[in-house]
Amino acid sequence: MPGSSRPARGMRDFLPADVRRRRYVIGVIEDVYRRYGFEPLETPALENIETLTGKYGEEGAKLIFKVLRRGEHESSGETDLALRYDLTVPLARVVAEHRGRLPKFFKRYQIQPVWRADRPARGRFREFYQCDVDAIGSRSPVVEAEMCSAACDVLQRLGFDDFVVRVNHRALLTGLLDAAGVAGELHGTALVALDKLDKIGADGVRQELATRGIDPAAAEQLLRQFSSEATPAVLEAALGDRPEARAALRELQTIMSLCEWTGAAGRLRVDPSLARGLSYYTGTIMEVTVPDLAGSLGGGGRYDGLIGMFSGEDIPACGFSLGLERILVVMGERNMFPADVDGAAADILVTLFDADGMPDALRLASELRAAGHRVDVYPEPDKLGKQFKYAAATGVAKVAIVGSDERAAGVVTIKDMRTGEQTQIPRAQVAHDADGVIDVDFNE
Amino acid sequence: MPGSSRPARGMRDFLPADVRRRRYVIGVIEDVYRRYGFEPLETPALENIETLTGKYGEEGAKLIFKVLRRGEHESSGETDLALRYDLTVPLARVVAEHRGRLPKFFKRYQIQPVWRADRPARGRFREFYQCDVDAIGSRSPVVEAEMCSAACDVLQRLGFDDFVVRVNHRALLTGLLDAAGVAGELHGTALVALDKLDKIGADGVRQELATRGIDPAAAEQLLRQFSSEATPAVLEAALGDRPEARAALRELQTIMSLCEWTGAAGRLRVDPSLARGLSYYTGTIMEVTVPDLAGSLGGGGRYDGLIGMFSGEDIPACGFSLGLERILVVMGERNMFPADVDGAAADILVTLFDADGMPDALRLASELRAAGHRVDVYPEPDKLGKQFKYAAATGVAKVAIVGSDERAAGVVTIKDMRTGEQTQIPRAQVAHDADGVIDVDFNE
Repeated sequence: MPGSSRPARGMRDFLPADVRRRRYVIGVIEDVYRRYGFEPLETPALENIETLTGKYGEEGAKLIFKVLRRGEHESSGETDLALRYDLTVPLARVVAEHRGRLPKFFKRYQIQPVWRADRPARGRFREFYQCDVDAIGSRSPVVEAEMCSAACDVLQRLGFDDFVVRVNHRALLTGLLDAAGVAGELHGTALVALDKLDKIGADGVRQELATRGIDPAAAEQLLRQFSSEATPAVLEAALGDRPEARAALRELQTIMSLCEWTGAAGRLRVDPSLARGLSYYTGTIMEVTVPDLAGSLGGGGRYDGLIGMFSGEDIPACGFSLGLERILVVMGERNMFPADVDGAAADILVTLFDADGMPDALRLASELRAAGHRVDVYPEPDKLGKQFKYAAATGVAKVAIVGSDERAAGVVTIKDMRTGEQTQIPRAQVAHDADGVIDVDFNE
Repeated sequence: MPGSSRPARGMRDFLPADVRRRRYVIGVIEDVYRRYGFEPLETPALENIETLTGKYGEEGAKLIFKVLRRGEHESSGETDLALRYDLTVPLARVVAEHRGRLPKFFKRYQIQPVWRADRPARGRFREFYQCDVDAIGSRSPVVEAEMCSAACDVLQRLGFDDFVVRVNHRALLTGLLDAAGVAGELHGTALVALDKLDKIGADGVRQELATRGIDPAAAEQLLRQFSSEATPAVLEAALGDRPEARAALRELQTIMSLCEWTGAAGRLRVDPSLARGLSYYTGTIMEVTVPDLAGSLGGGGRYDGLIGMFSGEDIPACGFSLGLERILVVMGERNMFPADVDGAAADILVTLFDADGMPDALRLASELRAAGHRVDVYPEPDKLGKQFKYAAATGVAKVAIVGSDERAAGVVTIKDMRTGEQTQIPRAQVAHDADGVIDVDFNE
């Protein structure tokens, strides 16, 4: 009985066309990150279960995939391993484990899948890639400026021209809530409501703040300050004498002015309503958005407390995560992939009409490959029509026909699949004629 | 209390230097496979548990990592998912699921990790990469010849020059055992003994065959035929009137003669002792070995029954798997990695002495990056000595010094970290001087 051939729920098979698009985007991300001096890191898919325990809150813990202990313990249902839930906890573990081998400022990128037992939905999967970049070891605003600049370079290289980087700072948020008279213990609940400004509008947030016990006057003040029209001067005035919050605002302005000299020029906006969950951020918070996507294309911030969780030390860090799956969705909807990304498996198909022709077909393929071409050989003797049909289906640009006539005459017939044109060239010349008749696009 | 920072048992963290070496080898493998017209496929790490059940035999089943069902069922210890154990079963599933979207001859490569709960040992890990290439849909010997040729091209491109591709055929094995008078039900046990010829020698195998109930005369005959000196003529004579086995021998000779026109020329040897487990192979079997490694660098063969297991159809297939982890081990031991693979995180470090210098440092970095350089910016103001120390530790080739003197004079001092030489160049010229003073090696 054949079994079901479906992938598991919330998981995806990536056929060649999907892989090409994913690799193209990942290639651009990696190239940009490398130019910024970030180095690649890879960690195992499976971690000891205690490495992940207590790191993702109550809701996160429910979504961790746990692996059954093998061997004699199997029947106990005991679990000892868990699948990677994000790339930050493994980074913190690696920094503690390999500290002596890492440079003083460790800048790493990591592009690997993570797994979450979330309810699958449109655009939400149980296996998906994270593209994280983190700089460890410095509190300087140069770090934030480089993060924003790198993310902007990636998006610009991919063809995005309408994105905005919203920035905020944890101390600024605290200061504004304090200044509005919201008690410290209500900050969290007030932010949950204010975070919905984009989705439910000012009236919705006003109602929700009331429900959450925030004084109406405070709510009005916050709504004014959290609107996109609030200038730094307005914010500064609102903060009054709160030195930490004022310093935070100045830091955001420093980051913005540093970014003016990079690819992020003109992209940054201070947005006091940006919260991003907040749980582990300690300073600047960043998020990239485009008009036609409800969520963000990526985001990050400074989290000076997290990296030290395995070593017990206080190690400053700042990170940014690009949402690969979302970038792919938007690029697909907007037709942003270059034509050559959606290319064929090969540039040239070498034909085969009889067993006697096999050695010459393989020899020709071998020469063309050595010259850098991607070459498919029709594997078994078949009619020319069938071979053309296969060529059309696989999308090769040229077919190299070597039948008995061609072999006798010492030539190869090259058929251009787009124009239908056929040209004969001497057999000895074919592989060296890369700029002539065999003039194909390399797509990788 | 900080937790343990060790990776899980049998799993590895890949620091940047490790990742670079792995990527280099994977890059060569992919480039060669693409030239052969193979297309990339990726499948999920997690499969439904029934997809893997019953596919790997009793021993294999014990090594499958099983994932606990989430939600209300968690406490039951029930499992519904399992981690990918190899790349062949997922391929078979994909071919059944997406048949309509795949070409008549589907040639795919897949380079992804697999997980096995094996006892970790030197060179044996619980997470490791497989590099599989499979051609589906044809029974032609052109397929085997292309498989061997591609594997040889990969190894040659990586710098191996002492490898041999041993080939055998399931029907040839059966014929030789029959001809020696070994009863069909003893073929399996006889092969287990004969497979150890390399390890325990002829005397050891002779004893083991006796223990396994093989007649001494048959054992002698098999030992002669399974030795590396057995020529095709010797084998043909031994086979007598066994048409299937004789056809198998001819097929091996066809594959060898086809390979003479490819990069596999001179690499293939018929080796009647090659068995490779055999369980699912139906035709040719192949294995690549080098003198200084006990196991193989890769292997594969024809398996016409396996791909149809999900669709119920009979679909011919032939595959080859390169052992990435072993290739890396041998290349490391032999110092085969090109020098630029073990390169630095960046080509140039831009210095920083005070907060006033930040904008210019970022601007210079931005220009150098736009010109294609990999540039690290020292993130916080520091003494020059400290910055040189960091440059030496990270291995950058050049340091671009922009202090207040340089800013006032409109120049940048470039220090060559290898020679110690310092050169001043006009600020406006730095980014355009890619072939001059900023003459660095690109390592990726």
